[in-house]
Amino acid sequence: MAQKPSIPKGTRDFLPVEMRRRNYLFDIIKKNFNLFGYTPIETPAMEKTETLLGKYGEEGDRLIFRILSRGAKLEKALQNNAISSEDLSEEALRYDLTVPFARYVVQNRNDLQFPFKRYQIQPVWRADRPQKGRYREFFQCDADVVGSDSLMFEVEFVQLFDAILSELGLTDFTIHINNRKILTGIAEVSGVKDRIVDLTVAIDKLDKIGVEGVVKELKEKDFTDQTLEKINPLFNLKGSAEEKLTIMKTYLNESEIGCEGIKEIEWVILQSKKLGIQNAEINFNVTLARGLNYYTGCIFEVSVGHEVKMGSICGGGRYDDLTGLFGWEGLSGVGISFGADRIYDVLNELNLFPNNLLSGTKIIFVNFGEEESLYALNWVNQLRKNNIAAEVYPDPSKMKKQMKYADDRNIPFVALAGEQEKQSNKVTLKNMESGEQWSLTLEELVNHLN
Amino acid sequence: MAQKPSIPKGTRDFLPVEMRRRNYLFDIIKKNFNLFGYTPIETPAMEKTETLLGKYGEEGDRLIFRILSRGAKLEKALQNNAISSEDLSEEALRYDLTVPFARYVVQNRNDLQFPFKRYQIQPVWRADRPQKGRYREFFQCDADVVGSDSLMFEVEFVQLFDAILSELGLTDFTIHINNRKILTGIAEVSGVKDRIVDLTVAIDKLDKIGVEGVVKELKEKDFTDQTLEKINPLFNLKGSAEEKLTIMKTYLNESEIGCEGIKEIEWVILQSKKLGIQNAEINFNVTLARGLNYYTGCIFEVSVGHEVKMGSICGGGRYDDLTGLFGWEGLSGVGISFGADRIYDVLNELNLFPNNLLSGTKIIFVNFGEEESLYALNWVNQLRKNNIAAEVYPDPSKMKKQMKYADDRNIPFVALAGEQEKQSNKVTLKNMESGEQWSLTLEELVNHLN
Repeated sequence: MAQKPSIPKGTRDFLPVEMRRRNYLFDIIKKNFNLFGYTPIETPAMEKTETLLGKYGEEGDRLIFRILSRGAKLEKALQNNAISSEDLSEEALRYDLTVPFARYVVQNRNDLQFPFKRYQIQPVWRADRPQKGRYREFFQCDADVVGSDSLMFEVEFVQLFDAILSELGLTDFTIHINNRKILTGIAEVSGVKDRIVDLTVAIDKLDKIGVEGVVKELKEKDFTDQTLEKINPLFNLKGSAEEKLTIMKTYLNESEIGCEGIKEIEWVILQSKKLGIQNAEINFNVTLARGLNYYTGCIFEVSVGHEVKMGSICGGGRYDDLTGLFGWEGLSGVGISFGADRIYDVLNELNLFPNNLLSGTKIIFVNFGEEESLYALNWVNQLRKNNIAAEVYPDPSKMKKQMKYADDRNIPFVALAGEQEKQSNKVTLKNMESGEQWSLTLEELVNHLN
Repeated sequence: MAQKPSIPKGTRDFLPVEMRRRNYLFDIIKKNFNLFGYTPIETPAMEKTETLLGKYGEEGDRLIFRILSRGAKLEKALQNNAISSEDLSEEALRYDLTVPFARYVVQNRNDLQFPFKRYQIQPVWRADRPQKGRYREFFQCDADVVGSDSLMFEVEFVQLFDAILSELGLTDFTIHINNRKILTGIAEVSGVKDRIVDLTVAIDKLDKIGVEGVVKELKEKDFTDQTLEKINPLFNLKGSAEEKLTIMKTYLNESEIGCEGIKEIEWVILQSKKLGIQNAEINFNVTLARGLNYYTGCIFEVSVGHEVKMGSICGGGRYDDLTGLFGWEGLSGVGISFGADRIYDVLNELNLFPNNLLSGTKIIFVNFGEEESLYALNWVNQLRKNNIAAEVYPDPSKMKKQMKYADDRNIPFVALAGEQEKQSNKVTLKNMESGEQWSLTLEELVNHLN
């Protein structure tokens, strides 16, 4: 009895059009990463379990896909009454790209030059409950530089966000910037230095739950009215990044670290603007926190305009210690991540994928029989040498069937090369959308298609 | 205590230079697949266990990496005294690209147009004992067309082997062609029609164990002297493909299916040569069998010349029934596979990777201090807009350190932009290999680097 085929929950097959669109998206990202000096690396899908466990919290550990042991090891574990996944598994699928990257940097340190600028685009796996837009296998797309404290990289990442998203056709998006030092400063001047995590977790939700929601949460966490009053101005910051910076300079006046944060952001925004921004709006967002316990300097998040309902599409920030867990303390860096699936959905919704991605093939020759098809094959051969993707329909089927095939595949041009064309050493070219036809020599055909 | 990081046995990290070389290799393969009308697809890393099991023989089943069940399912299995991997796992990592492709075609049949031409380049996982050149995670790189019996695709694949390997710089390689029908014909005229598998398994080893070895194996398998005598001429076939075809026509005269095989090969070789072969030698190899039980028509194998010791680097052939196991009987097709890791090793050994893959970045600006580095950043910004990968060294470190960094990274050009250059709106460009220096304007710099 034949199996009715299906794939594991939360995973995806990519159809031809989806693949071409995904490749288009990834190619633009890669091109820009390369132009900025980031170099591609790849790590194995499987890591040793001990490399991954304990790095993502308890919930993360539960969501890691583990590889079942094999052979004698498995037998032994079962005979010894294995009681947990630890007994049954020594390897696991990577859960993100950051931990494998940290492992990679330490393991290959002698073969790398620092500052080391890398990008990595690979799938990761999480046994999350699948839902719309959330998959168990999805691609992460990260660029990081490690081994330098220079703020030039923060500027570089602002430029990268702007360059990539602009090249993808987005015109309405915002790069939100904050700095962990400013968050620390806020906690300091509010007199709750020791409660920075609680404070920041709450104010980070401003966009989602509004002022009332944040105030409610802070009260529940026993923040005093005095603190709330001190924090209140942050909820109503208006104006350009520069105007907000001026306000915050006064606000954080008493906090040395806060002032440092202001100076950093000021410099990054100024230099980015001097170099020229294409489409990005820059927003200084004092409540932005994103994984607070990880970032130590600048924090980035990118959102798209009101045309599309979508959370953040990119994120990132500076960190102090990527590799401490693997024995190399204090290696600092800064990195960003593009949410490929979300950006794909945004481009789709805004109709920003070029039409020529509908088909990989530009022209298909109708097959009128063996002799004609060999004539066509010669033409196709020449077209391919001119970098034009071309095909001959493989069988002398009915014209209608062949035209339907071209149409279903969205191939924009069909060529007819019958007895008559053969004698005049030409082909008849048909534009499938407009219905227009031309009689062309090879050179004319190449020019027409280019 | 920090972990000393390592990766699972048989897996690999890819360093920057390796990645650029691999991408170069894959990009040329993809470019040609696309020009020939093959469309990319991808399938998930994980398949349901039942999709994979029983497709690769007993040995194959043992080598499949399985995903350990999680949560309640795992607990229940352990409480019920799980005794085998079946009890503990419902998903597994793909073992090759063929079975997932068959599953994909059936599952997505309503969204595909037939004949369907696809390529797929993804990693596969096998719990094989690792050894030199054999990994537990490696990439397969397949192109197939399903839903057509046309021999035009056999011609197309000969062209693809030739185009891709030639573009990679190989000049000395051989495409071996045979046909399952010829093997059947040989068994027929030798009077051992019912023993085709034993016969073919033995003669397939001719290249490896020589005539003596093959004869010995055939004798051990109780083939008669009469059969051996009949088969003997096959071991000494000499000359061009055409000459061998002439000999085999006589040899297989009595076998209808054998003659059909000859006709097919004759046509494929003739048309391929008419279209023009760049570098491939075409060899009609009557003992070539490769997975006999799978192929039903043409069989391909590609080997490199004597300069390099390496088994076959590509293979492929025609099959009758890709999807029967998933409920769609009789879908025929033909496909080929590029052995990416082996081709990589060949290119490496023959020094065929372009030098410019040593560095992704073309030029780095020395950092003389904040003001100069901002001037440099402007230049870098312009260079990137001209599609030139450029960087500024992030800190005003000692000159020697900065030059060493450029050198270690194999960056071919260094730019110096100090006070003097800034005033004349120029930079000093240094060729790191020759030591030559020039003073250039931006336009001159762009031209020089392009």
